[in-house]
Amino acid sequence: MQGTAGNGMAYGKRPIRVTIWNEFIQERTEPPVARNYPHGIHMAIAHGIGAYGFLLRTATLDQPEHGLTEQALNETDVLIWWGHLAHDQVSDAVVNRIQARVLNGMGLIVLHSGHRSKIFQKLMGTTCDLKWRSDAEREVLWVVNPAHPITEGIGQYIDLAPEEMYGEFFDIPAPDELVFISWFQGGEVFRSGCSFFRGRGKIFYFRPGDQAYPTYYNAQVLHVIANAVRWAATAHGVQPTYGNVPPHVPFR
Amino acid sequence: MQGTAGNGMAYGKRPIRVTIWNEFIQERTEPPVARNYPHGIHMAIAHGIGAYGFLLRTATLDQPEHGLTEQALNETDVLIWWGHLAHDQVSDAVVNRIQARVLNGMGLIVLHSGHRSKIFQKLMGTTCDLKWRSDAEREVLWVVNPAHPITEGIGQYIDLAPEEMYGEFFDIPAPDELVFISWFQGGEVFRSGCSFFRGRGKIFYFRPGDQAYPTYYNAQVLHVIANAVRWAATAHGVQPTYGNVPPHVPFR
Amino acid sequence: MQGTAGNGMAYGKRPIRVTIWNEFIQERTEPPVARNYPHGIHMAIAHGIGAYGFLLRTATLDQPEHGLTEQALNETDVLIWWGHLAHDQVSDAVVNRIQARVLNGMGLIVLHSGHRSKIFQKLMGTTCDLKWRSDAEREVLWVVNPAHPITEGIGQYIDLAPEEMYGEFFDIPAPDELVFISWFQGGEVFRSGCSFFRGRGKIFYFRPGDQAYPTYYNAQVLHVIANAVRWAATAHGVQPTYGNVPPHVPFR
Amino acid sequence: MQGTAGNGMAYGKRPIRVTIWNEFIQERTEPPVARNYPHGIHMAIAHGIGAYGFLLRTATLDQPEHGLTEQALNETDVLIWWGHLAHDQVSDAVVNRIQARVLNGMGLIVLHSGHRSKIFQKLMGTTCDLKWRSDAEREVLWVVNPAHPITEGIGQYIDLAPEEMYGEFFDIPAPDELVFISWFQGGEVFRSGCSFFRGRGKIFYFRPGDQAYPTYYNAQVLHVIANAVRWAATAHGVQPTYGNVPPHVPFR
Repeated sequence: MQGTAGNGMAYGKRPIRVTIWNEFIQERTEPPVARNYPHGIHMAIAHGIGAYGFLLRTATLDQPEHGLTEQALNETDVLIWWGHLAHDQVSDAVVNRIQARVLNGMGLIVLHSGHRSKIFQKLMGTTCDLKWRSDAEREVLWVVNPAHPITEGIGQYIDLAPEEMYGEFFDIPAPDELVFISWFQGGEVFRSGCSFFRGRGKIFYFRPGDQAYPTYYNAQVLHVIANAVRWAATAHGVQPTYGNVPPHVPFR
Repeated sequence: MQGTAGNGMAYGKRPIRVTIWNEFIQERTEPPVARNYPHGIHMAIAHGIGAYGFLLRTATLDQPEHGLTEQALNETDVLIWWGHLAHDQVSDAVVNRIQARVLNGMGLIVLHSGHRSKIFQKLMGTTCDLKWRSDAEREVLWVVNPAHPITEGIGQYIDLAPEEMYGEFFDIPAPDELVFISWFQGGEVFRSGCSFFRGRGKIFYFRPGDQAYPTYYNAQVLHVIANAVRWAATAHGVQPTYGNVPPHVPFR
Repeated sequence: MQGTAGNGMAYGKRPIRVTIWNEFIQERTEPPVARNYPHGIHMAIAHGIGAYGFLLRTATLDQPEHGLTEQALNETDVLIWWGHLAHDQVSDAVVNRIQARVLNGMGLIVLHSGHRSKIFQKLMGTTCDLKWRSDAEREVLWVVNPAHPITEGIGQYIDLAPEEMYGEFFDIPAPDELVFISWFQGGEVFRSGCSFFRGRGKIFYFRPGDQAYPTYYNAQVLHVIANAVRWAATAHGVQPTYGNVPPHVPFR
Repeated sequence: MQGTAGNGMAYGKRPIRVTIWNEFIQERTEPPVARNYPHGIHMAIAHGIGAYGFLLRTATLDQPEHGLTEQALNETDVLIWWGHLAHDQVSDAVVNRIQARVLNGMGLIVLHSGHRSKIFQKLMGTTCDLKWRSDAEREVLWVVNPAHPITEGIGQYIDLAPEEMYGEFFDIPAPDELVFISWFQGGEVFRSGCSFFRGRGKIFYFRPGDQAYPTYYNAQVLHVIANAVRWAATAHGVQPTYGNVPPHVPFR
């Protein structure tokens, strides 16, 4: 066997290192959002998944390099991303760094309005655009792949109200695994839980979590995020080599 | 949240219960096969993955109900299947029982000539036919999804020689995740590592392991099987309910 | 090039030969159904897609071999299937014949309650079970793959009312291409347009069309069925060969 | 029905408009390449698929806007792309324009070394990197989806020699449909025919065609390219709308 020991992260060997990134603007500038998330969405998520045994840290837009230095990413097994108003303020250098890290094995969980983040658009190769409506309506997320580890402990659906509506067409590549589909009171549907393999990395897009609503206190939503962290942090293979190679099996 | 506690198997909570099934004929009737596997292929696999901490048992064709009673299956998290000459001797009742158990969450790993087993054909819905040649040739299995947990610790490829050749077209549904592709000395290729989600269950087909060759002593092959056991045993969602239901959201 | 001329059906070279199969029971025994479909669902569909230029024939359960003789299937490019009450009365011999014909290139379009037909279950390898409710409610089918030819001319959605509800979890393999997702008034969602490749054949499952409602007079529903016929009849490759083969590239 | 007439291109209604793009450098600077393709790879392809009835035009790097003006793209149903040495010289404005046009329905066929083109990398979201070796070896492309229209008329495989080797891992998203897998004499395999749906557009990556070898005179290779043009030009749905929307089904 090639010298591959230690290349994967065996289940349960050490705590999964999670970095929760948030642009952290509306919680400081818009009173209704501040009431929902007085310490920021990142802190609500950190608190909400605190009991799962992960090693948690947070990072925000206003930090140097948005808190996502080369070292910070290298010490991150799974990056959670929430952004909304300031996608354009994220530097391209950091976006490229995250992309490279995902392709090299880091998990990435993109939440809600992160669908328009530079990093998600870059990894998807599409606009990631959608329909939306902020009308405090009811959402039901239905499990459509009960074999998927991300659905563990969730039951057949998640009921949320109030939430923002996101509607199809959602301009993404067909997910490698479609896990949840949302129903909205106003007549729309949405592919709400989508997993993707890219390079050595795993990506999960999860729809819920508008800043206007207290969604990140919902136990099922938090449990999905925790499950997604575990899924995205599972073992993977070695870094492939590229470029000019001699024959694997000599033929002359 | 609906009462879902305990529905999934959290990683590492207890040993994964694995049943290794083998038709166990050629090892007792054909001396060259007996020399490779004096105690049967099932015992070679059991020995080979013994160090991974699973709870192992074996079952064979000649046992009552082929060793796969309702209770045996209920106490199995992952079933490994090797068959070749006697697919037709497996009772339909047992095949239906296995199918129901897979759809309800049991993992299934189908090895090599198990591609023509009743249970694999039934779960795939196709003939599962292929080209083959038993000519002791060289095989190279290349990783084509390095994000997949089944590739952990394997490196970029597995070199095997001698092995039987299996060639495309392999008449299966496109796998949900294609993990390995094989190269053969004689000019053929084969989708050698294929994962499928079905109901609440996970299925992995893994090509190597002809009875004529000592493949199940290869450390990488054994490591793939062990990884596949862990992957197939990961948590899943609740058993869906079916049938006539009242509106989830009342509308009159 | 191997002698492959004539193996595929070039676009537009001759009319596509479509057989519309219907169990044709409720239209003859239940007055409300008879009022919707006085000549049977098969005749309504035949009339509805009559202008598309296909060569149409119908077949029903009560005919010898259910109207699906070897010759009838060999002269069929695409088979449309509607059944509900009498799945068990379809003979296994005919089901096996259809499966073989699909794997050898015939298109198959399964409508509505055909999800529990023997042929669909056999080709899927799963129970194909689901939730349902017959409450004359509103359905909206949203396009989730606007690149798919089946969506041509449909717009972004199809509005239907009244219809029966089908809800997730729909126990099928993840479709190779997910084309439509349905929203229902009562809070459920459903993967309503699902395409599958199997062997040389193409399969499309399309949800709408309960016998209690006049759905098969809806112009968009008929247009989807016609598009699906064209998609399922597009060219395909040669019949693969199977079994023992000499090396494609000599290696000794 | 919404006013969607004319949104799709019905099969065979008018000739498919194909633009063949080539960087066209090595054919003018390297004598061995010039001997293979004295008028450029684009002209060889144009000549080779000339009999299929497409409306053909070519474009090259050295033209204003690389020959890919807004108008040229709007009048293109399928764009074929060959590039190798000068990926970086393609302007980002043109790349963005092509991406937008693909997402809005234009087909794109990326050939061989075009895997490292800006447009393919942008649409895939990954590095698209791979292993390679230019050693005039033998390649066999095996059909792994005989239901796919791109395989029509090809037989079970394509034999090529001499060709450059491309080996896995190929850093792309798992294709929506895997059509060909290549075998190489030196022991490698490669996903050689990969189709992708993106937005309203269809993309096909096809591996063969190194400038050092006369591959674009091979009848099967040309037939695959022609089939891919037809596939990529098939009908699609309407352009989705995005942004803030009122409820589709009023709920207050």
